[in-house]
Amino acid sequence: MKQELKKRADFFNKELEKFLSKGEPETLYDAVRHLPLAGGKRLRPSLAILSCEAISGDVRNVMPLAIALELIHNFTLVHDDVMDKSKLRRNIPAVHIKFGEPTAIIAGDLLFTKAFEAMHGISGDLSVFKNVELGLIDCSREISEGQQLDMEFEKRQNVAEDEYLNMILKKTAVLFMYAAEAGAILGGGTKEQINALNEYGKSLGLAFQIHDDYLDMSSDEKTLGKDIGNDIRNGKKTLIAVHCMNNVYGDDKKLFGKIFGNLKATEEEVKQVYNLFNEVGSVEYAKNTAMNYCDKAKKALEVIPDSDAKQILLELAEYSIKREK
Amino acid sequence: MKQELKKRADFFNKELEKFLSKGEPETLYDAVRHLPLAGGKRLRPSLAILSCEAISGDVRNVMPLAIALELIHNFTLVHDDVMDKSKLRRNIPAVHIKFGEPTAIIAGDLLFTKAFEAMHGISGDLSVFKNVELGLIDCSREISEGQQLDMEFEKRQNVAEDEYLNMILKKTAVLFMYAAEAGAILGGGTKEQINALNEYGKSLGLAFQIHDDYLDMSSDEKTLGKDIGNDIRNGKKTLIAVHCMNNVYGDDKKLFGKIFGNLKATEEEVKQVYNLFNEVGSVEYAKNTAMNYCDKAKKALEVIPDSDAKQILLELAEYSIKREK
Repeated sequence: MKQELKKRADFFNKELEKFLSKGEPETLYDAVRHLPLAGGKRLRPSLAILSCEAISGDVRNVMPLAIALELIHNFTLVHDDVMDKSKLRRNIPAVHIKFGEPTAIIAGDLLFTKAFEAMHGISGDLSVFKNVELGLIDCSREISEGQQLDMEFEKRQNVAEDEYLNMILKKTAVLFMYAAEAGAILGGGTKEQINALNEYGKSLGLAFQIHDDYLDMSSDEKTLGKDIGNDIRNGKKTLIAVHCMNNVYGDDKKLFGKIFGNLKATEEEVKQVYNLFNEVGSVEYAKNTAMNYCDKAKKALEVIPDSDAKQILLELAEYSIKREK
Repeated sequence: MKQELKKRADFFNKELEKFLSKGEPETLYDAVRHLPLAGGKRLRPSLAILSCEAISGDVRNVMPLAIALELIHNFTLVHDDVMDKSKLRRNIPAVHIKFGEPTAIIAGDLLFTKAFEAMHGISGDLSVFKNVELGLIDCSREISEGQQLDMEFEKRQNVAEDEYLNMILKKTAVLFMYAAEAGAILGGGTKEQINALNEYGKSLGLAFQIHDDYLDMSSDEKTLGKDIGNDIRNGKKTLIAVHCMNNVYGDDKKLFGKIFGNLKATEEEVKQVYNLFNEVGSVEYAKNTAMNYCDKAKKALEVIPDSDAKQILLELAEYSIKREK
């Protein structure tokens, strides 16, 4: 599967490189190209391409969409890194570290603009173009809402599980959902196929994000002091944390309330909450929830005829909950 | 004229208020509504509306465009204020002051998204919609390029006049140009009328921005220590400054080079550069240049049949170089 994904990513990378040509002012276009051309898994473009392949569509029809998806994703990362003051991304300096905050904000805006520019490369029926573009607009709105919710949750004491799921649906899963759905629309899929791939993308995105949170919380003790410690001190609302806060009682609840979200928590205290996550069964719960979404994703593909692309999509669902980074 | 503009602004404000409805998360939508619903001259929407009226088009066709124009304008202001760390806008706290930088960045992004959402309200021929939307995408790209150039110019010793004009064309005039042109397209204007209104909008935008720079540089001595002083200390490349740096010689050139762009310049030194602006004739030059663009704007309208709307557009051109704030 990884080889098959890489084949599509390589093809996509050439198109992206062509699309993101240099321009004036030079610094701005260097900033625009910095992150998108630094690699990445290209999951969203691959998803659109595979979705199109799975319903026997012509992959060329889907390339403008694939580029737009990657640019939207990168635009959100560039602005996220400014907001979070993150220093590294894809193992290179974040855009705002290399080019300064003002240029990073503008570069993010320009990536957003260029996503819509890419969409205008979609050929064929104009009403299909308009419909698919409106879908991207809806996604962009929901991503903004999801980013805001994510920030607000960090400051809140209590977050319910359905609030958490709604947040990651918006922040992450809608773009997966849209990638798979729009890939099927541009490939000329039937209504049933389009709905199936929408459902696949949504469940894949949720599984992916929950596993991401799980990965962050399950590193070995060596890194506990850094990443996990910070997430616990910042009160980051992962599914593990949300499950734990809603299923812990008595003295443990008091302990959790005292440490989780406390920027001054000691390493020993962080360790206590980390242990609670396991004792309460929250780590196991998150793992199972991701697995359920993986199953849901695979089940959605039942109406899609067998093909190499379908096989890769099935394996991608497995990969989303098994990957180790 | 002001009354006629206000009539259109009032009509527009009702549509904008309807379009920018509240939403979840509440804080984000409050941040999104903060600036656009705090008033403003609504020049860009009015321009689109008047352009449509001037060629006897149906104004209802142009309202989605009018909303998109104002949202794009506001999105750039929100991000500009974050970048410049400005505290006030339209006499109220800037979005990032009231809601924090991260929310301001997301709110700007969402305003951008909602501009495209508004465009989808355009009815009629889909190829016209696609064409007009692509124009908005081009504008957004050029605005980003103009913002970056503006920033880079502040750090540069020398800027040529044509570089300055190219910068304000992108930063300000393209959106005026596009507003007038797209208003005419959606109103069903002829090719000749569309070109005329494009030319009108472009010249109006240039006149407007040059006069804006002129206003900043021509306040009375009382405010000299604040606004003008800061612009001189920051080395802000207005047409006045650009003309002066390119037309000053000998000892005056040395004086200018020493003070302009020097953050530590004293009040006395600032005054010396301010006097140079007048002695070299740079203030007069900027005034004349703005006047020439005003004439060019009015001349472009010659092919448009007489009407109330045309009359307002003519007066708007005059106003752009005579307004005092």
